[in-house]
Amino acid sequence: MSDKATQDGAPASVPQSALLERVNSPAELKHLADAELPQLCGEVRQFLLDSVQRTGGHLGSNLGTVEITVALHRVFDFRRDRLVFDVSHQAYTHKILTGRRAGFTELRQTDGMCGFTNPVESEYDLFHTGHAGTAISLGLGLALARAHESDPPHVVSLVGDAALGAGVAFEGLNHAAASGQKLLVVLNDNEWSISKSVGGLAKYLSRIRSSRLVQRAHQEVQNLISAIPVIGPRVDRALDQIGEVVRHAIVPGHIFEELGVTYVGPLDGHDVNLLVENIERARQLEGVVLLHILTEKGKGHPKAPSHPERVHGVKAPDKGFEKRADKARDSGGDTVKVPAPRASRPAGGPAFTKCFAESLVRLAERDVRVHAITAAMPSGTGIDTFGERFPARTHDTGITEQHALAMAAGMAKGGLRPVAAIYSTFLQRGYDQVFQEIALQDLPVTLALDRAGLVGADGPTHNGVFDIAYLRTLPNFVLAAPRDASDMERLLELALRLGRPFALRFPRDNSPAVERIHKSERRPMEPGKAEVLLEGDAIVVWASGALVEEALICAERCAKAGIRIGVVDARFIKPLDVDLLASHSGRYRWILTLEEHQRAGGFGSSVLEALNTLPNSGARVRILAIPDRFIDHRTTREEQLAECGLDADALERVVRSLTAATLV
Amino acid sequence: MSDKATQDGAPASVPQSALLERVNSPAELKHLADAELPQLCGEVRQFLLDSVQRTGGHLGSNLGTVEITVALHRVFDFRRDRLVFDVSHQAYTHKILTGRRAGFTELRQTDGMCGFTNPVESEYDLFHTGHAGTAISLGLGLALARAHESDPPHVVSLVGDAALGAGVAFEGLNHAAASGQKLLVVLNDNEWSISKSVGGLAKYLSRIRSSRLVQRAHQEVQNLISAIPVIGPRVDRALDQIGEVVRHAIVPGHIFEELGVTYVGPLDGHDVNLLVENIERARQLEGVVLLHILTEKGKGHPKAPSHPERVHGVKAPDKGFEKRADKARDSGGDTVKVPAPRASRPAGGPAFTKCFAESLVRLAERDVRVHAITAAMPSGTGIDTFGERFPARTHDTGITEQHALAMAAGMAKGGLRPVAAIYSTFLQRGYDQVFQEIALQDLPVTLALDRAGLVGADGPTHNGVFDIAYLRTLPNFVLAAPRDASDMERLLELALRLGRPFALRFPRDNSPAVERIHKSERRPMEPGKAEVLLEGDAIVVWASGALVEEALICAERCAKAGIRIGVVDARFIKPLDVDLLASHSGRYRWILTLEEHQRAGGFGSSVLEALNTLPNSGARVRILAIPDRFIDHRTTREEQLAECGLDADALERVVRSLTAATLV
Repeated sequence: MSDKATQDGAPASVPQSALLERVNSPAELKHLADAELPQLCGEVRQFLLDSVQRTGGHLGSNLGTVEITVALHRVFDFRRDRLVFDVSHQAYTHKILTGRRAGFTELRQTDGMCGFTNPVESEYDLFHTGHAGTAISLGLGLALARAHESDPPHVVSLVGDAALGAGVAFEGLNHAAASGQKLLVVLNDNEWSISKSVGGLAKYLSRIRSSRLVQRAHQEVQNLISAIPVIGPRVDRALDQIGEVVRHAIVPGHIFEELGVTYVGPLDGHDVNLLVENIERARQLEGVVLLHILTEKGKGHPKAPSHPERVHGVKAPDKGFEKRADKARDSGGDTVKVPAPRASRPAGGPAFTKCFAESLVRLAERDVRVHAITAAMPSGTGIDTFGERFPARTHDTGITEQHALAMAAGMAKGGLRPVAAIYSTFLQRGYDQVFQEIALQDLPVTLALDRAGLVGADGPTHNGVFDIAYLRTLPNFVLAAPRDASDMERLLELALRLGRPFALRFPRDNSPAVERIHKSERRPMEPGKAEVLLEGDAIVVWASGALVEEALICAERCAKAGIRIGVVDARFIKPLDVDLLASHSGRYRWILTLEEHQRAGGFGSSVLEALNTLPNSGARVRILAIPDRFIDHRTTREEQLAECGLDADALERVVRSLTAATLV
Repeated sequence: MSDKATQDGAPASVPQSALLERVNSPAELKHLADAELPQLCGEVRQFLLDSVQRTGGHLGSNLGTVEITVALHRVFDFRRDRLVFDVSHQAYTHKILTGRRAGFTELRQTDGMCGFTNPVESEYDLFHTGHAGTAISLGLGLALARAHESDPPHVVSLVGDAALGAGVAFEGLNHAAASGQKLLVVLNDNEWSISKSVGGLAKYLSRIRSSRLVQRAHQEVQNLISAIPVIGPRVDRALDQIGEVVRHAIVPGHIFEELGVTYVGPLDGHDVNLLVENIERARQLEGVVLLHILTEKGKGHPKAPSHPERVHGVKAPDKGFEKRADKARDSGGDTVKVPAPRASRPAGGPAFTKCFAESLVRLAERDVRVHAITAAMPSGTGIDTFGERFPARTHDTGITEQHALAMAAGMAKGGLRPVAAIYSTFLQRGYDQVFQEIALQDLPVTLALDRAGLVGADGPTHNGVFDIAYLRTLPNFVLAAPRDASDMERLLELALRLGRPFALRFPRDNSPAVERIHKSERRPMEPGKAEVLLEGDAIVVWASGALVEEALICAERCAKAGIRIGVVDARFIKPLDVDLLASHSGRYRWILTLEEHQRAGGFGSSVLEALNTLPNSGARVRILAIPDRFIDHRTTREEQLAECGLDADALERVVRSLTAATLV
């Protein structure tokens, strides 16, 4: 049946989900017989396959963690025990087991269930996360908080192998190990990190996986060692120590053991009863226990290969597996996408990501100094395209923005022109390096901030809506936003030519289908120079980046109603075109600023600062920006823009109300 | 002579610095005989003792790295090879050897030599750094940048053992190990990290130090293993592998070896010729080499104990050693301080740091949920005071802001009221955790941002002048600044009571000696409520935090000149007191905002945003803030305030010019 369903590609109805129908809470899971657990896991897996392929969402990582999640809920009671998901995009089985199966019909959709854990949804969800690597720290915090309880709850942090390479995960493990606290760290190692980019730790984990022979030989060698005759007093004391050292050495995971963590594993992550048994045992141990579980990403998916690493370079034909997974990272790689219903406007041009990637390749053809850096977002940022053309000039550091940015600074100091393509939201992880290593040294590093703005289904953990505030406050930085594909390339070219810290922000969406001014007719790119696209009567809109298109749509509609509004593409958020602003403040009655960023400290705020330095500013300013709250996930970015009053419709309402007020 | 000098405690004149006089560049160092190197090191050490005790500065860490630095310059040619100092406060010997000995008379003073490496000073200084942990990443970047050179330069990163616990250092090492690049990482292990707080890695390094016996027994055991008779075919293949495993296991540093790093050490860091020899050898090796060098912090200082860890809890009577070193971190711990010449105003009250620490202890007496967290800044933040009273409720995580903040979120989720005391500039390191783990979850974590503002001698790496911009853009955060000791306690009490993300910023300076309003007469602390201290005629100053005192001083002087200015203590930067602002915008001609923060996105900017939402704002605004550049080190914060136009004098000039203009 399962085979049949996958052969014709249609979502199967699931008549045999007899067990799953009975399990609507962890309590019911505990009533099942051991022998029923594998069947339950099969049913969960089938349910995921059916529902996620309909709604979109993270599939591969969730198919891989079915047994781990079932086993954890079997052993612990997470009404009182504490389960922390790292990233938490792999929590679908957890959601199913905690009474949220029905929610999957509207997964990641407007007003539907969140794609990550979310305390608003369930008492079983402790944190709403989406950035990798912090689960151990959160877990240690929870462990410390229970110090006074007589019957302290267990704390479990579920972490992926790629997240373990993030600095914060190392910091957390390092501290937890020495803390004396009891904490179970479950390492979900899905073997997709077999890539030079993810570093020495990944290679080490890979060696552990192949160390079974050594493991089996453990006892024999212990016997051998103890059977060695004492050769002389000089060796005598040494041998005692050697015995201890050897005991350590031939236990896989001695990196962890050396840090003070008890290592258990590696275990087959798809043998649910084996997992239950080992989790039970780990539960009894004191201190920090790392349970190393090997899983197969996409397990059970008809297209999942038995060796997932083989698909790394394969263009998978189906929507279930994109060609590369941006590991534990973003919805670009591991996410099943379904076509989003677009609003009533023409289909867009190529995605901004694609414009960036192709422009970067073109510019790098002419300049050997250009190198590309990403931090585990190769496909999400388009750096995979660059990597195919210039493999030696492409650097994927793994989930390590801090390192990626400091490394970029070193490269720039060494004479290169590195371009670090990082989602706006993940740049936050490397803010201190942006400050110290890049801005303070005034080095020519270009930051390509993809997903700057609202991101739709991924929600507030992934919205990139703070970067203007945290970047423009840093001296030396140039901050710009292209409105379309042509300006993307022109700005990128400028960034590489200028040789200064430079950030380009652009949203997770398509560029405009029609470019209203041919690039050959545009004035040359110059830092701090805006472009006037339309002149108006009383109102001018200063828009930033992709929202320029919304302003233009609004202007067209207003023109039909006899209202002429001006439209400016600010291009540069910093430095701002103060001269043009001064001129407009004398000429227009209203300056409306339009940005896909929080109001506080954003682009509009910088316009206010600039106008405030003028001796006289006649114009009044209305800032259109994201209000001071976190914006929930919606099916599309467009819905979020509408909700925040940042699309053409909202702008038109403001224009009409101001016009009406002015006429009165 | 050296002994005599140390016995009477007076700085010795240094008649015997015969070698040092001859060495004004690394080239001259290379001309010395091997046998002369120890004497040179002695002379450098004496020079440091003499000069740093006169000027202030980092002493202990520099006394510890004399031989390492001499040896590195002996082996490499850093006109073309690349030397990256982590933190770079330990670069004094490097400065001496690269022609900057004369600069020590004005070390860290206004227009004098910088306390860190600084490219402006010397071609030998690559980066101006002060935050720990990034040297490996910078080094890897430099290594990648030399790919096309026919005779590629060597790259050396000098890192302290505490910095190695920072996540970014792990990220860098992990990636470097797998990169195939040649990079020498010199680990300066000064053994001060023997503290549970610094984690498992520190314990591991400590075990290596004591593993000499094992090291010596290496060869014997290899012989033993190879002499074991083959017992049966089953064990045969296993033994081959075991041999390899054992070889690894009994080399100290196998954590590093497992990551793919070649480990060399541990070596006596004060045997300069041993270091030269080993650095020579390490220079030949391919890949990433970690050279583990044991040094003694404060080596050669008359008061330095032979076992530095013993001074951890000792109150050292002299100014050379404070009771705790805030390791590799700040100028609070390891810095020799000399009394700064204060401007012409009365001596201040207790330091804001002290006010914070004492308030926290008092509040924690009444609320067992209060825990204190610091990230390797125990004395700098006053958390050591808290730790003496509540050791079990005090958590020093090492140089790991990311982890510290995520852990704080976990503790808050678990029901505690954690207070994380972190310098403003170092909070940048944990910005993403402030966003995701604290703000997004809306958890009751209080951030005590010490050194918020200008910091004097430490300069731009340590100025905490971006936090308003990057924090106020985050939803859910309350951001406040106390003007004096009483408000510190009242705000801290509010933060703990309110149960929301809350940040308190205060500068590295003393609180006002005289509190102008007794705390019993102040209105209750309420989020978003400012306090009017003085009413004025045409001008009102909205000041934030410690600068309220400057506004009051200015007001006094103006009053004598017949100009009555209003003074408001804004208290809350977010939420702002919009009602009061609205009333003042109707009543005053000018609102001057005064803040110790960058202009872009700061407090003044938030005032503009608020006024812009009012239907009519009569008042004009003048923002007094730090201009859009990095502010260099000066002897004192007061000088920097004057330079930025933020002290009472500057404010008075603005008031007088506006008053004159108004009268005209």
